[in-house]
Amino acid sequence: MNQIETYIQEHEGQFLEDLKAWLRIPSISTLPEHTSDVQRAAEYAVEQLKRLGIEHAELIQTKGHPLVYGEWLQASNKPTLLIYGHYDVQPVDPIELWDSAPFDPTIRNGNIYGRGAADDKGQVMLVFKALETLFSVNGTLPINVKVLIEGEEEAGGESIEHYIKTYPERLGCDAAFICDTHMPSPRVPALITGLRGIIYTEVIVQGAKQDLHSGTYGGVAPNPLHALAIIISRLKDADGHIHIPGLYDHLRKPSHEEKTFWEQDPLHMDEAFLHEMGVSQLSGELEYPPLERVSARPTLEVHGIIGGFTGEGAKTVIPAVAKAKISLRLPPDLKSKEIFNLFEQAVRDVAPSGVSVEVVNLHGGEGVLVSPESSVMQAASAALEEVYHTTPVYLREGGSVPIAALFDEVLNVPVVLMGFGLPDDNLHAPNEKYSLQQFFNGIRTVASFLQKMA
Amino acid sequence: MNQIETYIQEHEGQFLEDLKAWLRIPSISTLPEHTSDVQRAAEYAVEQLKRLGIEHAELIQTKGHPLVYGEWLQASNKPTLLIYGHYDVQPVDPIELWDSAPFDPTIRNGNIYGRGAADDKGQVMLVFKALETLFSVNGTLPINVKVLIEGEEEAGGESIEHYIKTYPERLGCDAAFICDTHMPSPRVPALITGLRGIIYTEVIVQGAKQDLHSGTYGGVAPNPLHALAIIISRLKDADGHIHIPGLYDHLRKPSHEEKTFWEQDPLHMDEAFLHEMGVSQLSGELEYPPLERVSARPTLEVHGIIGGFTGEGAKTVIPAVAKAKISLRLPPDLKSKEIFNLFEQAVRDVAPSGVSVEVVNLHGGEGVLVSPESSVMQAASAALEEVYHTTPVYLREGGSVPIAALFDEVLNVPVVLMGFGLPDDNLHAPNEKYSLQQFFNGIRTVASFLQKMA
Repeated sequence: MNQIETYIQEHEGQFLEDLKAWLRIPSISTLPEHTSDVQRAAEYAVEQLKRLGIEHAELIQTKGHPLVYGEWLQASNKPTLLIYGHYDVQPVDPIELWDSAPFDPTIRNGNIYGRGAADDKGQVMLVFKALETLFSVNGTLPINVKVLIEGEEEAGGESIEHYIKTYPERLGCDAAFICDTHMPSPRVPALITGLRGIIYTEVIVQGAKQDLHSGTYGGVAPNPLHALAIIISRLKDADGHIHIPGLYDHLRKPSHEEKTFWEQDPLHMDEAFLHEMGVSQLSGELEYPPLERVSARPTLEVHGIIGGFTGEGAKTVIPAVAKAKISLRLPPDLKSKEIFNLFEQAVRDVAPSGVSVEVVNLHGGEGVLVSPESSVMQAASAALEEVYHTTPVYLREGGSVPIAALFDEVLNVPVVLMGFGLPDDNLHAPNEKYSLQQFFNGIRTVASFLQKMA
Repeated sequence: MNQIETYIQEHEGQFLEDLKAWLRIPSISTLPEHTSDVQRAAEYAVEQLKRLGIEHAELIQTKGHPLVYGEWLQASNKPTLLIYGHYDVQPVDPIELWDSAPFDPTIRNGNIYGRGAADDKGQVMLVFKALETLFSVNGTLPINVKVLIEGEEEAGGESIEHYIKTYPERLGCDAAFICDTHMPSPRVPALITGLRGIIYTEVIVQGAKQDLHSGTYGGVAPNPLHALAIIISRLKDADGHIHIPGLYDHLRKPSHEEKTFWEQDPLHMDEAFLHEMGVSQLSGELEYPPLERVSARPTLEVHGIIGGFTGEGAKTVIPAVAKAKISLRLPPDLKSKEIFNLFEQAVRDVAPSGVSVEVVNLHGGEGVLVSPESSVMQAASAALEEVYHTTPVYLREGGSVPIAALFDEVLNVPVVLMGFGLPDDNLHAPNEKYSLQQFFNGIRTVASFLQKMA
């Protein structure tokens, strides 16, 4: 057993305690009442970086939540890796469905449960612990690193986008490493070759100037909830087809290899989806393989509808206003600004008469495609193979990591998307968890990755 | 000036104080946390009845909120009038739109503002004050009365229905008088000749077994909010047509007089609706006159949708469950139980595949048609003409007073629907109010009505 492995095994307990302490901070970036918690989570990350040996660890103030930055640039003639993660988390509703409190991290059955365990504090912490292990064992790092951790990934990521576009030279590097994705199973390591972009919108429908009694006005009153239902049903039909003119026009054709992989589905994701969701059939565009639907097709989802009476019992109100939160996932080449304009026009076109409609662009981000051919991807692949004893698969992921597109476009470097989450981690849902085995294998893999990059 | 008028004028202040004290009790029958307030409002009504001279005033306990009962049966050889009202009120959301607190009754511009001012505490109180005036001036009443006030009118009215069906002989009478409707304007007194029934339902759609991340599952996951939108849009189209097979089959044809009244719209309700709602066009079935649409056509309204993320900002969740509160207003002859069955079947038929659907019948009530020819309706008409100096119009109202159908069916007596609300009273909405002039003219009219019945 080498020194790296010995160090990791001897420090398992401390590594988990450091993660737990971070998970206890409810750094929900979209809720204003948690602003000071978000700040505390950032300060905690700075402390971690300082302790493990990173230099110039500091908060970078922004118009929103602070960035965490640190660097270590003493490996002469070695490449520089920009390491990215995020320390903010999603809200916890519906809180009653959590088996343990979301901010009281709890270990059960080899997993650590808590909001942010997988997305993304657990994954950032494993990178920190890989750096700590390398520093502790070798007194140095095999390559140069710049660490940039943001606090707005779940809230649009405007501050980091502004920072990267304003100071691209400060982040100059040879490659970027994002640890915020997952692998299909603990036996199937993966590198991500594609991500979808996103637009997140709010559609606001106004009917009468005030709430109305359905007994008095039912029959002549506009009903914004009904109008929203019509709008939503016209935007996406029951077969999963999105009716936004122009949406599909610029969709890039997948490669033959990808298409074959999706159709053959060697990982049996089709069955995995059924099991994970607890349903008897999959929804969406049945003419495309499930893997293609979740990773390479545009999707439109309604995340919430607000309006009218939602308490217990009965109230016969026709609400004056109703709102829906609607997002689209966008494969690469569907640019968020252009698609938002198409979306806004489509909403206006399909809205019934008698109501007025406003479409708000809450945030957007671009998708990305990554070549598996670069030397840094080859180093990551070799590290995964070393730890997992099998060749990794190349997958697209359906989620959105807008920062990957930014690194690609602004810094113009290859982006390694290597994460250790699992499909059943309950991201953004109750009982979010992270596998402890994945956590420790992640530390091993990242340490090996940095050594192979050197 | 006669003694009645003198008494009313001398007691205006006290009458309003008694009303205000009642309005201060937040007797919201649908919210369990207000159960004790509902009880207090009932006790207050009993106290009022005792003070004004009604005998055997008491609470009748039920499985839900108590009934208030009292009687005075000493007018030998005179008819007996059953007087009905309700002391419960609607919830107050959205509370931020109230100009004064809903349970701090406030007088502005000749109106009293507060939840229940018009629906129905203000109208019940004017009946009490008419009885008080007659007792005080004459030491007796011109006819026999039974007073029955319920506390579940806004919550389904199950208890009073059970009571009436169980003890119809206790409520034996020659006519029933319901003071819970409105007139088109202070210059146009009205008697109501028709009411719509109602079914109030909740449609519950279940997708996956838990909330899902739209990045991971978007494309294969069922989305209950999207399914609800499809269901709702298929149940009622943008032109106001309801697509529930069989719904329109038993709709009774209106009389020629009614049809002509609706088409000619002598009260210009068309313009009134536009003004009251603050919209530039009316919604609904354009091929029917607006008056017919709001009073004699079936309508379907969505009152609230629950599900997903509705907080500030963005959360990319696909919810496991979504619910909609949906009601239908039913003209007479559309029976609530039968229509609920048709509705439930229609929901199942139009639901997209991949989700499971449950339809809950929260409550129902029947519509009613009243003949204007009965002697008690003639007495009411004469009383209105005496106070308002003009012949009343006969109107249907679009709201639901299920108790009217019960009196009609179970007690088999003519039902007088005479109320003093106005169209802009903001029933079930913020800033509910009641006109003070209507309150006092109501007292005058009801006192005269009882005298003419004798």
